[in-house]
Amino acid sequence: MFKKVLIANRGEIALRVIRTCKKLGIEAVAVYSEADANSLFVREATEAYCIGKPPVNQSYLNADEIIRVAQESGAEAIHPGYGLLSENAEFARKCSEKGLVFIGPSPEIIAMMGSKIEARKTMKEAGVPIIEGLNTSLESENEAVMAAEKIGYPLMLKASAGGGGIGMQLVHSEQELFKAFAGNKKRAESFFGDGAMFLEKYIQEPHHIEVQILADSHGNVVPLWERECSIQRRNQKVVEEAPSPFINEETRKNMLDAAVKAAQYIGYSNAGTIEFLVDRQQNFYFLEMNTRLQVEHPVTEEITGLDLVEEQLKVAAGQRLSFKREDIQRKGHAIEVRIYAEDPKTFYPSPGKITEFQLPHGEGIRNECSIEAGSQVTPFYDPMIGKLIAWGTTRSEACARIKSALENYKIEGIKTNIPMLIKTVSHEQFLSGYTTTQFVNEYYLPQLSSTK
Amino acid sequence: MFKKVLIANRGEIALRVIRTCKKLGIEAVAVYSEADANSLFVREATEAYCIGKPPVNQSYLNADEIIRVAQESGAEAIHPGYGLLSENAEFARKCSEKGLVFIGPSPEIIAMMGSKIEARKTMKEAGVPIIEGLNTSLESENEAVMAAEKIGYPLMLKASAGGGGIGMQLVHSEQELFKAFAGNKKRAESFFGDGAMFLEKYIQEPHHIEVQILADSHGNVVPLWERECSIQRRNQKVVEEAPSPFINEETRKNMLDAAVKAAQYIGYSNAGTIEFLVDRQQNFYFLEMNTRLQVEHPVTEEITGLDLVEEQLKVAAGQRLSFKREDIQRKGHAIEVRIYAEDPKTFYPSPGKITEFQLPHGEGIRNECSIEAGSQVTPFYDPMIGKLIAWGTTRSEACARIKSALENYKIEGIKTNIPMLIKTVSHEQFLSGYTTTQFVNEYYLPQLSSTK
Repeated sequence: MFKKVLIANRGEIALRVIRTCKKLGIEAVAVYSEADANSLFVREATEAYCIGKPPVNQSYLNADEIIRVAQESGAEAIHPGYGLLSENAEFARKCSEKGLVFIGPSPEIIAMMGSKIEARKTMKEAGVPIIEGLNTSLESENEAVMAAEKIGYPLMLKASAGGGGIGMQLVHSEQELFKAFAGNKKRAESFFGDGAMFLEKYIQEPHHIEVQILADSHGNVVPLWERECSIQRRNQKVVEEAPSPFINEETRKNMLDAAVKAAQYIGYSNAGTIEFLVDRQQNFYFLEMNTRLQVEHPVTEEITGLDLVEEQLKVAAGQRLSFKREDIQRKGHAIEVRIYAEDPKTFYPSPGKITEFQLPHGEGIRNECSIEAGSQVTPFYDPMIGKLIAWGTTRSEACARIKSALENYKIEGIKTNIPMLIKTVSHEQFLSGYTTTQFVNEYYLPQLSSTK
Repeated sequence: MFKKVLIANRGEIALRVIRTCKKLGIEAVAVYSEADANSLFVREATEAYCIGKPPVNQSYLNADEIIRVAQESGAEAIHPGYGLLSENAEFARKCSEKGLVFIGPSPEIIAMMGSKIEARKTMKEAGVPIIEGLNTSLESENEAVMAAEKIGYPLMLKASAGGGGIGMQLVHSEQELFKAFAGNKKRAESFFGDGAMFLEKYIQEPHHIEVQILADSHGNVVPLWERECSIQRRNQKVVEEAPSPFINEETRKNMLDAAVKAAQYIGYSNAGTIEFLVDRQQNFYFLEMNTRLQVEHPVTEEITGLDLVEEQLKVAAGQRLSFKREDIQRKGHAIEVRIYAEDPKTFYPSPGKITEFQLPHGEGIRNECSIEAGSQVTPFYDPMIGKLIAWGTTRSEACARIKSALENYKIEGIKTNIPMLIKTVSHEQFLSGYTTTQFVNEYYLPQLSSTK
């Protein structure tokens, strides 16, 4: 096992990784920007080095500086967390060139899954169902319209290198597609340096359900059940749970089988997530693969009892997985909500100073955050400031616990989405367990305007 | 199920019970003393009534006033928590006379188990092993010395009505016994209104291990594994864990069998704990039965996933237990530490105002407390201000997590026993899992004086 690991991230996920390192007796090296100098994750690390100023391109995205600090501090491996450099194949390659272990899969796999068109092709070869659509890049509006005719509307126009909903648009007609094409292509070029666009058939009432897998470097792949992450705002998840309340045992087994097949086909290693869209009839289709730890990994930990960061460290150190698929029991139900520093009506970020802060607690309640009373929420980073997770024997127990915990979450000085989360987890549609990615549009936003 | 329940307690346990009530959709009525008016448990209750001033005999022990509030508020049942009126047979009787359900066993059983001499006799009849000793009350020094000769020294001199170590003394010789008798009898008379004294053989290297049981009013008794609570200061537990790292599976099975036999013999119903002393050879002996929820119940919840307060409410409402002994799997390991507002060197209470307060969090970490930044810790009540619980797949994972969480427990303005707890959970003797009730005397206190 490693003796020293550098964490190339910030906030709650940096603290999360540091804790597991310390639990395992591994020294944890933090890197931080000037804006994060007083953060909890910096204090909790065994050592910490300032790597520059905000915004991220001057510090957390400065691959060379991070690698230099890793080498000087004597770290043997780098944990990238999520976001930032975690799916940057070039960074992973540089780490390995400098003799550092990148805690994640190989650069080749990161690159392959980073291209949605490549990923679609590969999954089709592997025998994993994909959404009807194109496996090549579209060059022009005319090409797009011709391709669309074969697939049929409504369609999703997507950027191959996209993420976070950027370069993506739902189109219902030839006219809409024609109008949307150039703008999205341009956005993809400027955000990702890659303007490749493709089309996928739009799945009606889509459920976002994903399978967590763990794979070692000896060819073993174990699925850790699924997570339902349908509730999203601005194409980002806000509520996640495990298991999915929507799918039946047969679908579950088939999805897990498909995820294992996908990971085995590409020779995956480390933790990864295969995301699926699931329609009303429980047909599921490959959406994308995230080649890193997910924000929502705690719900999987809660129902399995595993520490996913520990497993990542072990397989990155060359160890074999110590369990098989049939050993992974699932127990109870877990729900996570993401606490964002944002206006709950507009979803715009709301930075500021946290004047009062008190976490809810009690049976089945878990918190992950790196803020505290007095913390400054700056405009430089993702506005997610913490995660709240509730476990229960049943889904309804978990629902009751997360609601009560949200009501007791005390945070003053900034706006947060807590009122939105309380409305969501109290909504009868959520309680029924039939949630689609349209939940916020269909239920939350109309409710807002009707009460004003 | 009840619609409204009054909680006749304060602090973390009141909040704990309120949370489960709310989870089940039951209205929770709090009662509080003037000293607790701003407490979290008061704010969290559905309704709250002031029942007088501190100290406890003018408020939390005022049975008539509590019953009056219960009746006026329309509560159907009273949850007594632990301590205070929870093992007061007279209070339980008054509740039932006024048509209120006392959430606990019958007054007769509370009274029987409240007398240690009676309890010893009954357990002997039930076939549960008891410590060699007397089943009658001693009237004089001479009677004590004569009885002691038959049993042999060292001996524990104990008050039949005792609790919390009061009226109890270890004696090694006739001379010591002669000297100790009158003083302890007098203390027992003044503290408990009952000076009945008896003798038990002293068990060498005693381990305190207890079995949690749940019993319904239909004759079903289910054991929920055991807890090891050997680490104590001033005869009060400070660290508790489940399962016990000391006993083997055969002893475990035999202890659980004995606990079920005990509960069945007396026709017990509700949650209860049968405490045993266990010697080096894993022989176990009945110590006493607690006819209420224990402070340390969360460790049992963590390894079983049950909500013990919910089970108490259900059986008090006449429901049958929904599981059998073989259904109760245990998963992983849980450790609880009690956070006391006290000097960690002298164990003297340290009241004051909490100026800063921040709970540790993360995977496997649970907090139970009713204090917050700004809370006043008054000298009127037990100095326990909170409990910290860590779960892990293995004992060593739970140990690493509780240590790290203790190091991150931020509380300013008062002294606490956190430094003592960190030393304890880091000590190699604790980590080895062989802990006796002499741990603090043998390892902690000598370490203290040697480092000064």
